[in-house]
Amino acid sequence: MSGAMNFRKCGSVLVTGASRGIGLQLVDSLASGAFSPGKIIATTRNPSSAQKLQKLAEKYPNIHIITLDVVNQDSIEKSAEEVGLLVQDKGLNCLINNAGINVSADFQSVTAEKMIENFHTNAVSPLMITKTFLPLLKAAASRGGAGMGIQKAAVINIGSLLGSVELAMDSSFRWYPYRVSKSALNMVSRCMAVDLEADGILCMAVHPGWVRTDMGGVQAPLTPEDSVASLLSVIGGLTEKDHGSFLNLTGEPLPW
Amino acid sequence: MSGAMNFRKCGSVLVTGASRGIGLQLVDSLASGAFSPGKIIATTRNPSSAQKLQKLAEKYPNIHIITLDVVNQDSIEKSAEEVGLLVQDKGLNCLINNAGINVSADFQSVTAEKMIENFHTNAVSPLMITKTFLPLLKAAASRGGAGMGIQKAAVINIGSLLGSVELAMDSSFRWYPYRVSKSALNMVSRCMAVDLEADGILCMAVHPGWVRTDMGGVQAPLTPEDSVASLLSVIGGLTEKDHGSFLNLTGEPLPW
Repeated sequence: MSGAMNFRKCGSVLVTGASRGIGLQLVDSLASGAFSPGKIIATTRNPSSAQKLQKLAEKYPNIHIITLDVVNQDSIEKSAEEVGLLVQDKGLNCLINNAGINVSADFQSVTAEKMIENFHTNAVSPLMITKTFLPLLKAAASRGGAGMGIQKAAVINIGSLLGSVELAMDSSFRWYPYRVSKSALNMVSRCMAVDLEADGILCMAVHPGWVRTDMGGVQAPLTPEDSVASLLSVIGGLTEKDHGSFLNLTGEPLPW
Repeated sequence: MSGAMNFRKCGSVLVTGASRGIGLQLVDSLASGAFSPGKIIATTRNPSSAQKLQKLAEKYPNIHIITLDVVNQDSIEKSAEEVGLLVQDKGLNCLINNAGINVSADFQSVTAEKMIENFHTNAVSPLMITKTFLPLLKAAASRGGAGMGIQKAAVINIGSLLGSVELAMDSSFRWYPYRVSKSALNMVSRCMAVDLEADGILCMAVHPGWVRTDMGGVQAPLTPEDSVASLLSVIGGLTEKDHGSFLNLTGEPLPW
C-alpha cells in the first residue's frame, strides 16, 4: 500500500462515474484512507439519484460532487468550469477516467448502434474529458517539480484486460462492443501520452481486475474494496517510467 | 508472387471501397493478372460516379459492380442479396474489407463526432458486413476442403500499422480518429477470428503499406500497383496458421 500514501501529496483527484461500482469505491477509499487527497471530485450524471455517493459526501467534507454526462460535450465543459472554481490556480492533479459501460452483444446480436454507444462512452469520452480538462491539468503540472506522477499531474484511464488485442483469442468473452471500446481506449491512452508528455502530464491505462460490481456480476473474484486498494497503490506509485503503460493490479505491464 | 496464383482457385472475391485507391487497384490487379478469380465483386457507394471502375468492368467481364454504402445496414443487406444472386450456392470465398476513411484530427481538433465517424466506417462496418455476408461465406467454406485459405473462405481486413497500439508512441502521426479506428479494427478482426473459426472461415488483418493514393498522399513511398502486388501475394498464401493474424506486406506479424 505504499503507493497509495502518495495521494496525501495530491491536491485534487477527479473520478468520473462515481455513483457506483469501482468509481464509488475509489471515492470511498480515497476519502476514508489515511492518505486522503486535498479534494476528491466525484462526477456522476445524476447527483440526485446517487444516494451512496451523497452519503459519503456528507461524511467526508473533501468530497465534491459535480454533474457530468461523459457523452455530452456541453456537460464536459460545464463540469470543467465548476472544477476550475474548486481547484483555482492549483489545477487538477489526478484525472481518473473511470466511467464506463458494457453494452453486451455477441457476434449474432451486435449492431452498429451498440458498437458506437460503447465506443463513445468508454473510449471517446476519456479523450474529450482529458482534452477539455487540459488547462487544469497543465496548471497542476506547472506547479509540480521534475518527473511525473499524481503529485504533479496524471490522467488514469480505467482499461480492461478484455481490451488486449493479443489476448482476445484466448478468452470466452464474446462482448464485441465492450472489448473493442477498451482496445480503442488503449490507443487513445497511448496517443494522449504522446501529446501530454511535453507538459509533464503522465498518462496511462490500468486494468482493475474482474470486480464484483453491477457490471462485473456476482461471479467476479474481486471485491470493489480489494480492487481499489490495489488500484490506488498502483496509481499512487506511478512515475515517468509508467508513462503510456497498460498495467494490471500488481503494476505489471499487460500486452496490447 | 506465388501466393497470388492461388486466386485462380478462388471462385469469388469481393472488395469494398473499390472506386479508388487500394480498392480500385485490387480489382484491377485481380482482373488483369494471370491469377484472376472467377468473379470479382467490386462495391462502391456510388457506381455512377466510379468511372475508373466502370471502365475496368467494361474491359473484364468477371468484374461485377454492386452498390454498397458500408455505414448503412439496409445497404449492406441489399448488397448481400445481390451478391447471393451472383454467386449462387457456391457462396463467397474472399471478402476484402477495404473501404476506409481518414478523418484527420489531432488532439486539438478532435471531436467526438470525428472519432465516431471514422470508427463507424473503419471498424464497425467490416464487422457488420462480415456478419451480414456470413451465410455466403459459410456456403463457400462448406464446399472447401480441410485447412483455411482463400480457396475456401476468408475475411481480409485492410488494417494499418498506425493501428498498432504498441507502436503508437514511436510515430509522429497525430491522427486520433484514424489510429483509434484501426486499432479497433484489429480487435474486431481478432474477435471475428474466434467466431468464424468453427465454420473454417479464415479471418485476419493486413497492413497495405503507406501507399500513394488520395488518402496516403503524394509523399507515400509505395505505388498502388506495388502495394497490391504484395497484398495479393500475402492474401493468396494465407493458411490456418495466419488465422487471427496482423501481417505486413512481406507476410510478417506486426505488433498489436
